[in-house]
Amino acid sequence: MSTALLTDHYELTMAQAALHAGTASRRSVFELFGRRLPEGRRYGVVAGTGRFLEALADFTFGPEEIDHLASHRVVDDTTLDYLKEYRFGGSIWGYAEGDMYFPGSPLLIVEGTFVEAVILETLALSIYNHDCAVASAASRMTSAAGGRPCIEMGSRRTHEWAAVAAARAAYIAGFSSTSNLEAARRHGIPSGGTSAHSFTLLHDSEEAAFRAQIESLGKDTTILVDTYDVAGAVERAVALAGTELGAVRLDSGDLVAQAHEVRAQLDALGATQTRIVVTSDLDEYAIAALAAAPVDAYGVGTSLVTGSGAPTAGLVYKLVSRADDSGTLINVAKESKDKASIGGRKYARRALDENGLARGELVGIGEEPGGPGDLDLLVPLVHDGDIVGLEPVEAARDRHRERLAQLPRKSRRLSKGEPVIPTVFVDEHPDPSLVLRH
Amino acid sequence: MSTALLTDHYELTMAQAALHAGTASRRSVFELFGRRLPEGRRYGVVAGTGRFLEALADFTFGPEEIDHLASHRVVDDTTLDYLKEYRFGGSIWGYAEGDMYFPGSPLLIVEGTFVEAVILETLALSIYNHDCAVASAASRMTSAAGGRPCIEMGSRRTHEWAAVAAARAAYIAGFSSTSNLEAARRHGIPSGGTSAHSFTLLHDSEEAAFRAQIESLGKDTTILVDTYDVAGAVERAVALAGTELGAVRLDSGDLVAQAHEVRAQLDALGATQTRIVVTSDLDEYAIAALAAAPVDAYGVGTSLVTGSGAPTAGLVYKLVSRADDSGTLINVAKESKDKASIGGRKYARRALDENGLARGELVGIGEEPGGPGDLDLLVPLVHDGDIVGLEPVEAARDRHRERLAQLPRKSRRLSKGEPVIPTVFVDEHPDPSLVLRH
Repeated sequence: MSTALLTDHYELTMAQAALHAGTASRRSVFELFGRRLPEGRRYGVVAGTGRFLEALADFTFGPEEIDHLASHRVVDDTTLDYLKEYRFGGSIWGYAEGDMYFPGSPLLIVEGTFVEAVILETLALSIYNHDCAVASAASRMTSAAGGRPCIEMGSRRTHEWAAVAAARAAYIAGFSSTSNLEAARRHGIPSGGTSAHSFTLLHDSEEAAFRAQIESLGKDTTILVDTYDVAGAVERAVALAGTELGAVRLDSGDLVAQAHEVRAQLDALGATQTRIVVTSDLDEYAIAALAAAPVDAYGVGTSLVTGSGAPTAGLVYKLVSRADDSGTLINVAKESKDKASIGGRKYARRALDENGLARGELVGIGEEPGGPGDLDLLVPLVHDGDIVGLEPVEAARDRHRERLAQLPRKSRRLSKGEPVIPTVFVDEHPDPSLVLRH
Repeated sequence: MSTALLTDHYELTMAQAALHAGTASRRSVFELFGRRLPEGRRYGVVAGTGRFLEALADFTFGPEEIDHLASHRVVDDTTLDYLKEYRFGGSIWGYAEGDMYFPGSPLLIVEGTFVEAVILETLALSIYNHDCAVASAASRMTSAAGGRPCIEMGSRRTHEWAAVAAARAAYIAGFSSTSNLEAARRHGIPSGGTSAHSFTLLHDSEEAAFRAQIESLGKDTTILVDTYDVAGAVERAVALAGTELGAVRLDSGDLVAQAHEVRAQLDALGATQTRIVVTSDLDEYAIAALAAAPVDAYGVGTSLVTGSGAPTAGLVYKLVSRADDSGTLINVAKESKDKASIGGRKYARRALDENGLARGELVGIGEEPGGPGDLDLLVPLVHDGDIVGLEPVEAARDRHRERLAQLPRKSRRLSKGEPVIPTVFVDEHPDPSLVLRH
């Protein structure tokens, strides 16, 4: 299925005007970055890279797309002829998926002709702004959960396809599984789930519902115990499944108090291995508040898929350099006071201290400083039109864990604060050790 | 393309357990509703109905879906056999798209066997929670804009397919057009757009960029004037296009002050018909603040597609009634203190006063009160499996305008407040005129 019309109208009218003016083929460099993190966030998490590369492979204008553009006179015939043949033939570098990012980090650098690069703007931003927002929230949640598993179950609270992408982003940022079957099929994420209140209410008694569930799904199932009376439900569940009962789920009320009560009850019944799953409107703060409670897993929905207060990452896609008629690249930037950007094609490195902890994000133009042990953050994603950066989602998940471990401990604080490491813009002649002392 | 796996895992395990227990075919009624509006909102806007009906038509488990479920052992063979034959064969009633809703309004009533109705939960909620959130925000924006057109341009700030649905929801709630080409193709919404800052920066001078745009797109185009210096850009644009210049766009800075300055400049240059479009991080409050400024159109992005602070509508899907073994329908409801619901199959009417203004939402079970002139809010959407409720998106857009005009004026206030009309839950023996006096 073509992704080419998931694009703002003006990308194509710009293409038309540039084709007309003879500037369409000027070599151009675009950068995808954020001017700031959401308020109070210590770091952002890169997600969407794999989805973007897959969407890029499908970014072609077939007969149906051309028909729409022609019949609605979006662009002229010259532009339609160009679009019919369009395949991105340039090169893209980017932060690897699962890595962290900070204000000014160049998450993507897209180089090609002006037209081939500009018309990717909308699609690239849609994917990155959504997936980074979810992954960034998810990372705070998995940090707050310590080693306890977090289950993604927010599908119902967001657009049906955003849900699939959200499950993927959450998995990269450390969630253990998802409720979403399409995410399981498409991205290979473990899926799970057992029953809702409606299942209990369907039956003539709670006991009948529990028996039906245990007989069909096995004793290791998770029983939802808050439809009527929690203590009674726990007793009934253990009476039916025995001490092999897999888990009980709490979905309402005072979760801290209930978790303690239910744990004591389960233990008294001999069900010491039965786990407690909690799932009621959790966010990273609620998860942290449950740290001392005997909870075995967290199910997170709404706040995850809506980015826990920051439903979009606020990333932008800007032209930073383009050729003139002689082919010389010229750095460019808008001058608006409140939306300034920095011209020039960037490099990005993460400076590490002697303990291997990150101490600064070096973003600059010109020659790279190349400190010993620093991380080179830009990896090749597309080379002359060939997609070279696809990797399994597990690789991004592993990277997230490793790169997060390299951030200073205060990165895990949930309170509002500054980015955990500074972004240092290095000009042509860098001396990062000096700059970082500021 | 099948929509069947856009579903939470537990819907299918519940199906398995109910099939096993012999309760799967119990006649059941589910209700989709919100316990409350987002904080401070005066009303919600129903959107997603048409998308839900289209998705329902594609909700079938084909070989690929069955393969995934079988190979991952999501459900047993008996359930797979059931799912292979699955088509929703029940009936659905709902609020008509574009109408308003309030706490407790039954946006959908889904009646069928337990299994055929329960497995629609995730998909229905995903669509309604997203689309209602966007439409509800959009309605506040179009109200704040008075008669001035609002242009949807938030695609880049949300998931790439959520963007398409957001454009549709915004159009229903009064937006005039979208930047999103897929929304134009798929839903017939007018699309538009001309150029971004990158187009100006591509060229050797702003004048060269403006000339290229005007020559290719015509004098009626919209010129972006804030890349360097606004006054200089306005002068250049009029010098090139003459007084027939279509519009100028401001995308940064103090929009109120700039709109006045640019209007004065345009008028002084004789370009009295040239419009001013503003587009910088607008929400309903910023739009209201520009009411007295000489602005001709608003472009809205981020805050629209993220629901202006309420990115999900918080709607839920609950079993409210189901048959017992004798076939008698029994009203059911969960008893949890903080998430209680009201059992029973609902009717919903909007009581109007003598001026035709809404004075209350009557939601009840049992016999309908049927006051003179009241609106019956539930329309048939699916009849015994046949989709009967599809309508053009224009019909929903027209309905939104009409129904909004029936709300008391304070519905248009942007300040936080209570729902503009009360929801009155009427029990078996209604006397609405009495109840409404409270």
